[in-house]
Amino acid sequence: MTISVTVWNEYRHEREHDEVAELYPEGIHGAIADALREADGDTGSEFEVRTATLDEPEHGLTEDVLAETDVLTWWGHAAHDEVADEVVERVREHVLDGMGLIALHSAHYSKIFTALMGTTCSLKWREAAETERLWVVEPSHPIAAGVDEYIEVPEAEMYGERFDVPQPETLVFNSWFEGGEVFRSGCCYTRGEGRVFYFRPGHETYPVYHQPEIRQVLRNAVAWAAPGEGASSATGNSDPVEPIDTDDDRSVH
Amino acid sequence: MTISVTVWNEYRHEREHDEVAELYPEGIHGAIADALREADGDTGSEFEVRTATLDEPEHGLTEDVLAETDVLTWWGHAAHDEVADEVVERVREHVLDGMGLIALHSAHYSKIFTALMGTTCSLKWREAAETERLWVVEPSHPIAAGVDEYIEVPEAEMYGERFDVPQPETLVFNSWFEGGEVFRSGCCYTRGEGRVFYFRPGHETYPVYHQPEIRQVLRNAVAWAAPGEGASSATGNSDPVEPIDTDDDRSVH
Amino acid sequence: MTISVTVWNEYRHEREHDEVAELYPEGIHGAIADALREADGDTGSEFEVRTATLDEPEHGLTEDVLAETDVLTWWGHAAHDEVADEVVERVREHVLDGMGLIALHSAHYSKIFTALMGTTCSLKWREAAETERLWVVEPSHPIAAGVDEYIEVPEAEMYGERFDVPQPETLVFNSWFEGGEVFRSGCCYTRGEGRVFYFRPGHETYPVYHQPEIRQVLRNAVAWAAPGEGASSATGNSDPVEPIDTDDDRSVH
Amino acid sequence: MTISVTVWNEYRHEREHDEVAELYPEGIHGAIADALREADGDTGSEFEVRTATLDEPEHGLTEDVLAETDVLTWWGHAAHDEVADEVVERVREHVLDGMGLIALHSAHYSKIFTALMGTTCSLKWREAAETERLWVVEPSHPIAAGVDEYIEVPEAEMYGERFDVPQPETLVFNSWFEGGEVFRSGCCYTRGEGRVFYFRPGHETYPVYHQPEIRQVLRNAVAWAAPGEGASSATGNSDPVEPIDTDDDRSVH
Repeated sequence: MTISVTVWNEYRHEREHDEVAELYPEGIHGAIADALREADGDTGSEFEVRTATLDEPEHGLTEDVLAETDVLTWWGHAAHDEVADEVVERVREHVLDGMGLIALHSAHYSKIFTALMGTTCSLKWREAAETERLWVVEPSHPIAAGVDEYIEVPEAEMYGERFDVPQPETLVFNSWFEGGEVFRSGCCYTRGEGRVFYFRPGHETYPVYHQPEIRQVLRNAVAWAAPGEGASSATGNSDPVEPIDTDDDRSVH
Repeated sequence: MTISVTVWNEYRHEREHDEVAELYPEGIHGAIADALREADGDTGSEFEVRTATLDEPEHGLTEDVLAETDVLTWWGHAAHDEVADEVVERVREHVLDGMGLIALHSAHYSKIFTALMGTTCSLKWREAAETERLWVVEPSHPIAAGVDEYIEVPEAEMYGERFDVPQPETLVFNSWFEGGEVFRSGCCYTRGEGRVFYFRPGHETYPVYHQPEIRQVLRNAVAWAAPGEGASSATGNSDPVEPIDTDDDRSVH
Repeated sequence: MTISVTVWNEYRHEREHDEVAELYPEGIHGAIADALREADGDTGSEFEVRTATLDEPEHGLTEDVLAETDVLTWWGHAAHDEVADEVVERVREHVLDGMGLIALHSAHYSKIFTALMGTTCSLKWREAAETERLWVVEPSHPIAAGVDEYIEVPEAEMYGERFDVPQPETLVFNSWFEGGEVFRSGCCYTRGEGRVFYFRPGHETYPVYHQPEIRQVLRNAVAWAAPGEGASSATGNSDPVEPIDTDDDRSVH
Repeated sequence: MTISVTVWNEYRHEREHDEVAELYPEGIHGAIADALREADGDTGSEFEVRTATLDEPEHGLTEDVLAETDVLTWWGHAAHDEVADEVVERVREHVLDGMGLIALHSAHYSKIFTALMGTTCSLKWREAAETERLWVVEPSHPIAAGVDEYIEVPEAEMYGERFDVPQPETLVFNSWFEGGEVFRSGCCYTRGEGRVFYFRPGHETYPVYHQPEIRQVLRNAVAWAAPGEGASSATGNSDPVEPIDTDDDRSVH
């Protein structure tokens, strides 16, 4: 199965700060796109990858692009507010129609993620290049395929509980931080017909997206989030399936 | 325990259509408020009830009113769009801070419910005064307390699956309709620190809110949704709990 | 991907009652095996199918057979008690180690299903050859792939709520019955590293397993329940990952 | 509301090891019973407390005792196998009928808890008197009432993931350990009509059950697990609610 992925990135830090540009010379989207392109069929899928960034027209997320996208990955941080509401709504409609969404790291505060969650998505944070250890709590979940008991990120920004999200339908990863906190770091949701995965790791000043285990999880997550055939589904005013009296005329519609 | 409840109603049908006014002479909010006021301690709680309606200033939902409200019940149908976004956001913040919300019947399409769910909340519907039977699927749930195996509503508007909501944290009622459909008709959610219950029954042209079993469920739901003491919770930039090196200076903040 | 499936059947009704033998001349297991063998790659998987029945030695479920089984389907009804506890425990261990299990219809009362659920798995029932309509409530779920809005079974045994199971991790199908009941008829669980799906339809005196839509769901369910690669996982006494003082000698072990 | 609690304890370590006897002179059950008795109405409930231990006749859990018990707390460690299967089954039936169960610490391996979960309930462990920090992930949950952002246990036995349980209906606490592990340390389940809470802290050689915050959680958990009025519920062969043809005579029953 070939999955069409659009890797979206705010792409500002990389252009404004040398230390970020050095870590991610092709942008964070470039690193993520590479992680998908290096797939060797390990997830049972091939990925066709394009990228899109904030400063492109319509943020690179035109109706045409989204119509051809099976899974959208989202990285944003400092410019969430600059994402046009109209584009957010367009993305949201595609997710509800089945497009997968992988929200990465600071995308917890993106307009698209908070709109789909309905909560503040607040959390605790600290930049201290500390150790994070993502323990697998659901080892049979496809997003954890090929992962060891845990993934250790040597230098991570801390995100800590209370993470204000609806409780995940499945919790795949649970993080330990050197500074004393924990965090639900791999959370699965269904919204409409779309699958949503929040994955915590990734930070502009640390080389997290170059780490092989993290790249494996990115591939797994995209493969998991891709829409399948699905069942039919209809809404709106409906005739009865069973023969019943439909003469009631009290409607005020 | 005394629970302060605000019963909100669009209150248009009752003023515009005689047949609705006849069924609900004090408005749908009046009937619901009555259902709460007739509590005899069966839920372990007393209710202090006020009402608010769309055409009041700020829809009757000022910051002061919400600050004094433990649980808000919401009935709207034809004028969802007339509810000011600013008031919706105010209500949403109160829910996330712990205020309970009971979304009733056509409130599935209210701005506040869809904002908290993140999905379209679409469904199938039909006005044919048909039989609905709400089966209890979680008999030990407090919202089902005192209910028989099922509640039969003799004349109901049909709502049918696919109901496009996130899967409920707990499904309490599951409805059968004469015309051949089913519906998840009692759905519990947590959003932020607030509890949300969607309860399907209730229609402007049928006397559903005068039915004793439905009134019992309304009381149960309000008692369930009232906030408790809760735990502390903090977000934002945080010092480590454990002694760690915090000298990392690569931040681009 | 090739999935190795063992189709287990009590296989008594077919040998003892002509009317059942006429409906299922190759046994219920034969019909289910056929449903899997007719796969045309629609689920992305091929199935390698064997069958096993109660009256074979060890009920056909030797360690060797289970070790080669990715997914086990289970149909039993009148002889649950004759299944040896030792075989049940063997099957349970394989499920917890990752083997998928599809519990069909009256298997709600099988030893293996109740052992995995921890509850009575009781329900209401009636044999009246009535209409069942399985509505899809999670249209994007792979088990519902290719299904219409609902599946209608013209002659079904009724199963009704309260179905005493732990609430499913995902509810895929929700059934309507002509006689007035509803039932959660497609329920997903994870137990250990194994996936478990309870699917309600199927009865010895009705031709349910010859119905194309039901056969499609059987294929979907088996494909969904097949184990993937998974993550590593370890238990037992463990050395610390971080350097800590381990000199505590107060253990009473 | 007065809740009748039976505090069960294996009560062997305290009689066999001086260091345990010193910490828990009245037994672990004595410490837990004290924690409940010191309730000052903070949970809205009063507790009527009795204790029962392994070496009493029928382990102190006769039908009469269980019939009068709203919530049973369970601490066991080294003698799980000595609990009679018949008593386990009796307890299980009471839980499914509505009695609450609080499984504490090493009770993860008790017969009653594993029977209700259906899984191995295995985990990682280490006795090193290390720091545990239980972070609240669901601050509005009644079991977390009155708790700070986290509870710190200065000397704890480590339990680490992968904890092989079905995913909790609600995860209330998430633990951090000094040695580098995490653990889902407060897990809510419903089984039948009974509520089950697994609470990790507590160890025979550490004074965990004397810690005020842990005692608060014990009171909260017992109050949460107490059965309410509930709805009716029936199972078995049932007449149709709607008038249908019931002449089908193909039954092989």
